[in-house]
Amino acid sequence: MFSTEELQQKIADSLKQLPVYNDPAGLYQPISYTLEQGGKRLRPLLALISTQCFGGNPDQTLPAATAIEIFHNFTLLHDDIIDQAPLRRGRETVYKKWNINTAILSGDTMFAIAFGELAKSDPDKLPGLMKVFTKTAIEVCEGQQYDIDFEESDNVSIEGYINMIRLKTAVLLAASLKIGAMIAGAPEDECEKIYLFGENLGIAFQLQDDLLDAFGDEGVFGKKTGGDIVANKKTYLYLKAIECAGPEDLAKLQTLYGTRDQKNGDKVMEVLKIFTACGIRSLTDGVIRDYYDKAMQNLNGTSLSEENKTPLLKLAGGMLHRNF
Amino acid sequence: MFSTEELQQKIADSLKQLPVYNDPAGLYQPISYTLEQGGKRLRPLLALISTQCFGGNPDQTLPAATAIEIFHNFTLLHDDIIDQAPLRRGRETVYKKWNINTAILSGDTMFAIAFGELAKSDPDKLPGLMKVFTKTAIEVCEGQQYDIDFEESDNVSIEGYINMIRLKTAVLLAASLKIGAMIAGAPEDECEKIYLFGENLGIAFQLQDDLLDAFGDEGVFGKKTGGDIVANKKTYLYLKAIECAGPEDLAKLQTLYGTRDQKNGDKVMEVLKIFTACGIRSLTDGVIRDYYDKAMQNLNGTSLSEENKTPLLKLAGGMLHRNF
Repeated sequence: MFSTEELQQKIADSLKQLPVYNDPAGLYQPISYTLEQGGKRLRPLLALISTQCFGGNPDQTLPAATAIEIFHNFTLLHDDIIDQAPLRRGRETVYKKWNINTAILSGDTMFAIAFGELAKSDPDKLPGLMKVFTKTAIEVCEGQQYDIDFEESDNVSIEGYINMIRLKTAVLLAASLKIGAMIAGAPEDECEKIYLFGENLGIAFQLQDDLLDAFGDEGVFGKKTGGDIVANKKTYLYLKAIECAGPEDLAKLQTLYGTRDQKNGDKVMEVLKIFTACGIRSLTDGVIRDYYDKAMQNLNGTSLSEENKTPLLKLAGGMLHRNF
Repeated sequence: MFSTEELQQKIADSLKQLPVYNDPAGLYQPISYTLEQGGKRLRPLLALISTQCFGGNPDQTLPAATAIEIFHNFTLLHDDIIDQAPLRRGRETVYKKWNINTAILSGDTMFAIAFGELAKSDPDKLPGLMKVFTKTAIEVCEGQQYDIDFEESDNVSIEGYINMIRLKTAVLLAASLKIGAMIAGAPEDECEKIYLFGENLGIAFQLQDDLLDAFGDEGVFGKKTGGDIVANKKTYLYLKAIECAGPEDLAKLQTLYGTRDQKNGDKVMEVLKIFTACGIRSLTDGVIRDYYDKAMQNLNGTSLSEENKTPLLKLAGGMLHRNF
């Protein structure tokens, strides 16, 4: 078995060997800039670990894992345009450092490169892998569209929000695990169970992210907290507060989320006060626990031995505690 | 053998059966809007005709042909943002009718859908098809980047321009033919020859487009002429004129191409006068003929019978005479 560090090294080496450092420079420089930034490489790692747990050789999963990482980074390039995000992993985003057109076109190229890497997988497995990969890519776009829609909507349900984060975040984590299992030759129902494990874990992961964005320790969270509140993001926390708050707090919350130009520090404080009054923190913790438990049920439903589950459990724990 | 009309009907039916009319509407409406516009469907038609000429069953090529058409339309969505084009086929472009974010995200979804359709091809052929498709997609992005670069550059060579239109336009036509041949089971060297036929034909096709944009009959050309001149596009015509013009005309041409705000009618007239003085029309006609002849050599280098060449020759002639 390779260690996590060894698998991460394989991913880093694979990304370095991509044929993406050629002309035209205006197209390829932003791609190199994006891929050399590192980041957690969580998704390709999930794929390689999954292969290993199901008794396969992670080297055979490397093309698909590389494809997943490039695809993920492509979505970030386009999302950063859409969200007008100036920074990503502490560096200027591509559309800020270059321009929107560059971020569009370099992103498109990354999408194509991702499929080119995927195509290097075992030919016998390729049709199945393509099916999962394209379905997932479409769903990720759907998730981003719902996220955009929700910004303008006054009528977002908690169910709708969970579905949005499922599509935008969880399905790619789930697909990474499934692809890893498929390449290991795991039976279809096992692949499906590991997918559901990843999907439920992914929802828990995103809800945890929402929670940390409001209540996290900035040192541990790795970025400034309160960003979702400043941006009036209708997260689970907000939607649950709307559901639970008394008439006075409800009116106040809606007023606070209807503005952008007040002093942000004050606004965040006011909102957090209402969240706390509604017990949002423990309510969210409870839902995270529910999704985590569902994920564990999915994992325990597989035929994996305790030993083979261990790396997945370790990674799952790390994701929720933000080591990943 | 199916007639061209029958093949076109197959393409239209296949596009209608795509699963793209679901939620979220903000994502899928622009896709339906784009794909229902029709257009010439030249690329999928090339794929189906190629399959038929090489003795294959075009129904087996339908998924790949559909993928090619969706991919082509995806590139138009993003190109229209980059080129700030308000109209396409007489209708508002997606980014104008909706907004830039919608055009980005709906385009991305189309790219994913295209790969999903391609994956429905014969599994044995899929790895080879993926290789051609992804290489082509990357090259189309490179071509668009060169086109952007050339707008800012004072140092565009004719060779560089030809390479740009090769990447931006010709390789997708070439890949369509090659994919059709591959699915028919044609030997590799035949697939390569039909690719080169398409590549040279594609360059001739784009040069013809440039020529018609300057000197064409608007009724036949189907859009207003002079657009490239108004936009200061460094086409073959301009680059050749720069090379051939005397010092006075050269200075005048460069001044005319350095401005955007003069009366467009006058500018077009002035530029056309210089083009005519330099004999640009017959020079360009000559180069078009050269590429067309090369294409014919490529076609005659295949083992196709005269009868099987006929539909390809008909389509090639139609492309150059703008019936396509």
